[in-house]
Amino acid sequence: MIPVAIADYLRVPTPQAWIESAILNTDLLLVDHANCEKKAASTALSLLYRYVEKPDLLQRLSILAREELRHFEQVARVIEKRGVAYDYVSASRYAGTLNKLIRPDEPQRLVDTLLVASVIEARSCERFALLAGMVDAGLGGLYRSLLDSEKRHFDEYRRLAMEYGDEEDVRARVDAILMTENNLITTADREFRFHSGPTVNLHAGPV
Amino acid sequence: MIPVAIADYLRVPTPQAWIESAILNTDLLLVDHANCEKKAASTALSLLYRYVEKPDLLQRLSILAREELRHFEQVARVIEKRGVAYDYVSASRYAGTLNKLIRPDEPQRLVDTLLVASVIEARSCERFALLAGMVDAGLGGLYRSLLDSEKRHFDEYRRLAMEYGDEEDVRARVDAILMTENNLITTADREFRFHSGPTVNLHAGPV
Repeated sequence: MIPVAIADYLRVPTPQAWIESAILNTDLLLVDHANCEKKAASTALSLLYRYVEKPDLLQRLSILAREELRHFEQVARVIEKRGVAYDYVSASRYAGTLNKLIRPDEPQRLVDTLLVASVIEARSCERFALLAGMVDAGLGGLYRSLLDSEKRHFDEYRRLAMEYGDEEDVRARVDAILMTENNLITTADREFRFHSGPTVNLHAGPV
Repeated sequence: MIPVAIADYLRVPTPQAWIESAILNTDLLLVDHANCEKKAASTALSLLYRYVEKPDLLQRLSILAREELRHFEQVARVIEKRGVAYDYVSASRYAGTLNKLIRPDEPQRLVDTLLVASVIEARSCERFALLAGMVDAGLGGLYRSLLDSEKRHFDEYRRLAMEYGDEEDVRARVDAILMTENNLITTADREFRFHSGPTVNLHAGPV
């Protein structure tokens, strides 16, 4: 179910403990997922301001931002239909920590931004694939449709990084970003989120 | 060519001097226009973060943001095809001044934000209608296709404002926003932009 290219790229799979939390927290997962789609659109849109001299990047990331917005609409509809409260949910440590790895000067900044995005899309693809068969049929269908898009977005970001970056540098940066990413998804996290690590005793009451 | 509902809403038409500048500055107009489409998408997207408890607004503004992005792609393609340099162009005073009118507390903040957006969409619609027949056929076709969308976006924002606001308050706010807006588009502006007022002696050399 998980595309081979995605599993290879990510190196370390999502721990079983995260999957178990996800199945127990589908409402929270939906809200955090909707927020992730908005943020993915915002990230792509921010690059349309920063790289106006790159016509190819503008076209491809604008199309990608539109797809993220369409996914947001789909998830927001599910949230509404299921009567889930769309409350404020804080962001996980995941994207913030990865974004700190982005080197500040160009052209490294662009390459790192694209690679961080490629990793986030790959992890999202993997998690949708893991969950698709374990949630109810309605959510499962949504997740299956989304995992193809995440796979395409992963390809898009990686291809753009290779287009604007040096091959050897791209390889080294993928290593560095994935070392941090793999640590984030395998070490204990404070709160359950779509991109969190495993959360311990999430719903356990007092012993 | 200008939809009657748009001309009525705006009250004061774009001055002839602006139209003359626009025809002399189609390259600058294209770049500023591309930026306006991005900003329109950003504005709609920012409301998706702020008003998560309003499912209807989320759906409608996410669709609208996607349309703005599609327009951005169209304009960016024209910029590239014509070999126009997509250089940095500062924003005009227009949207910034109108945004200052937005009352800080909810629900007034939402109503004002929607009404300012409705006015900007209406003015954009009017200007595309004015220019469509005066520029070359390629640009004219683009402007004609866009003016229908701007009209729909104007309707959408006004309808949302009436949905979330009080009828009398909405009327008073439209008056206040248009008083400022009409002043912005009829008084001399420093630099020519898509939403600027008339610019004097823009290209005149020394006498």
